[in-house]
Amino acid sequence: MNNPFSFELIKTDPVGARLGRVVTPHGAFDTPVFMPVGTRATVKGMTPEALRGVGAEIILANTYHLYLRPGHEVVAGLGGLHTFMHWDGPILTDSGGFQVWSLGKLRKIDETGVSFASHLDGAKCVLTPESAIEVQEALGADIIMPLDECTPHPSTRQYAVNSMNLTHRWARRCKEAKKRNDQALFGIVQGGMYEDLRAESAEAMTAIGFDGYAIGGLSVGEDKALMHGMAAAALARLPAGSPRYLMGVGTPEDLVWGVGAGIDMFDCVMPTRNARNGTLFTSRGKLVIKNARYERDPRPVEEDCGCYTCSNYSRAYLRHLYMAQELLSSVLNTTHNLYYYIKLMRDMREAISNGRFGAWSKGFAEAYSEGDIQP
Amino acid sequence: MNNPFSFELIKTDPVGARLGRVVTPHGAFDTPVFMPVGTRATVKGMTPEALRGVGAEIILANTYHLYLRPGHEVVAGLGGLHTFMHWDGPILTDSGGFQVWSLGKLRKIDETGVSFASHLDGAKCVLTPESAIEVQEALGADIIMPLDECTPHPSTRQYAVNSMNLTHRWARRCKEAKKRNDQALFGIVQGGMYEDLRAESAEAMTAIGFDGYAIGGLSVGEDKALMHGMAAAALARLPAGSPRYLMGVGTPEDLVWGVGAGIDMFDCVMPTRNARNGTLFTSRGKLVIKNARYERDPRPVEEDCGCYTCSNYSRAYLRHLYMAQELLSSVLNTTHNLYYYIKLMRDMREAISNGRFGAWSKGFAEAYSEGDIQP
Repeated sequence: MNNPFSFELIKTDPVGARLGRVVTPHGAFDTPVFMPVGTRATVKGMTPEALRGVGAEIILANTYHLYLRPGHEVVAGLGGLHTFMHWDGPILTDSGGFQVWSLGKLRKIDETGVSFASHLDGAKCVLTPESAIEVQEALGADIIMPLDECTPHPSTRQYAVNSMNLTHRWARRCKEAKKRNDQALFGIVQGGMYEDLRAESAEAMTAIGFDGYAIGGLSVGEDKALMHGMAAAALARLPAGSPRYLMGVGTPEDLVWGVGAGIDMFDCVMPTRNARNGTLFTSRGKLVIKNARYERDPRPVEEDCGCYTCSNYSRAYLRHLYMAQELLSSVLNTTHNLYYYIKLMRDMREAISNGRFGAWSKGFAEAYSEGDIQP
Repeated sequence: MNNPFSFELIKTDPVGARLGRVVTPHGAFDTPVFMPVGTRATVKGMTPEALRGVGAEIILANTYHLYLRPGHEVVAGLGGLHTFMHWDGPILTDSGGFQVWSLGKLRKIDETGVSFASHLDGAKCVLTPESAIEVQEALGADIIMPLDECTPHPSTRQYAVNSMNLTHRWARRCKEAKKRNDQALFGIVQGGMYEDLRAESAEAMTAIGFDGYAIGGLSVGEDKALMHGMAAAALARLPAGSPRYLMGVGTPEDLVWGVGAGIDMFDCVMPTRNARNGTLFTSRGKLVIKNARYERDPRPVEEDCGCYTCSNYSRAYLRHLYMAQELLSSVLNTTHNLYYYIKLMRDMREAISNGRFGAWSKGFAEAYSEGDIQP
């Protein structure tokens, strides 16, 4: 069987934004795309039908979390991730490298792989490039990721070089370990905050050859200009005919910048996590629903938003649910935020398609402000 | 305008179970009915569409909670409870008597009404029979309840007599205070655990005259036989042509007993609260989803259940969500439990309609066991 994964680059806008289409064994999706994060085989508070309702086409799950609980063999025994979580669309699993990195002192990295203490019960665990692939083959996502080291920021140049080279060696081992031919494997570009290393890493990954290329280790505390520079250095060396995925990014403004820079795929916990914290995204910026000024506000979060939440509920009701710490608060806020993020991507695809992405992104930037919107 | 509320008694089974139909300004529902509890203007974790999906026809909200937050005037300003919470079907508001009673030492009862400290911020509040009606007229439910004193158990006979008579005087004041004629007002029978007082209270309420009659102050720690005796004493004195509502009851077994005894309406937090605690109801009894034996169990909670949860998810996935304390755990478990409760009522209505409620309830009792079901 040939690998059913494919990427078609449909159009590149003069500013560099790309329109594409990815085909996977569980269906196709248009790029640029935002992928909601379903860490533990569930996008928090959303049924798969509700995810479809907000326009989600591909979702993320996390290898590290599912490896620890319920265990990849449990998931495999139940028919794999798609059946387990009742989502029949494309899924991408992150390798767990970032989560292990986040454990800080609880983890140890050497040539073999990473050893760490489970955040659940302290049990000693090991992930190697080979076992990360084995776990992801058991989970059965459509796109899988190699084990990498997320280079800390700040890092010395020497640390960044060593870390990058380790990620390259691991990437080769992952590619060799891969047995299933119905899953796409992406490479992950590292290189810390050094432009030349980013370029070198992109070239090394391209030389190994993957179905797509991710840029990892960004949005880890650096300023925006630095992030943009690092991404640009990598993007310039990645093959145009493959999808490019910027991991863990970001704000609506980051997405607009990223699409303009030529990124095709994004994921971030921001829309879902912020929803649970009562922060809602609108075309004018963030709306913090707990603010007293919304107590009697009959308007929806955003007047012309087509989401289920805005179609049926007032800011006053959403504020009430948030203040009362009601479950429905998270559900309705997540519904709005994911709809907003996914519609933002759809709007950008349309702008690219019409050859007016530059003008569109100017309009976006004029309307959107970083702070809390005013009434 | 005439009060659009009506009750039609369609059929009475030989054992005493009744089939009826209630019409309200926001639609009709068949009885016996189970009303999901939406204390703070939301049935925890369920959108109104999801509630319709499990078959809910009427829901409850709570006067005490909504009076404190967000405030009845806020709700009224936003168009009333139906618009506020996006539920266009019938709503019943409890008066708050039970919640105030639950405050224990934080409340004081005298002839005027109840004064209490808010459980939210300790603010001193007063509810009188008149203000309880005023709040409920502002909220705008289809069926409203008078302020009552839930007689503590155990109580001396003298306490129960005094408490009952206070409830009667308050009931009269509530009826007099009522201004809106598009809401039904039910009377509440009290009388503690004294059969003759229960009978006396039912007669007194009937004499005052209400649109329906509730039995309050049961399921407060007494044993089942005592509860059954108290309910029977009240039911024998209530007019057959009015709906009878047993407040805050109960387990599936309680519902089957209650329908057999001639109760038309029930509410209870059990299906929703137990769902959040990982306890699921089935025709064979309770299933505690955290049990290790469900770790790899590919079966639905109940094989032939038609609910969304059982149609799409395994016990193993539900266990995973519960162990990971995921939001979707509450959503999917609540969906199943409410479906179970509401289908139980539908099955009983069908049995009554076919004149075989006695046989049906024997079959139910044989299948259902109080403990955790075995695999």
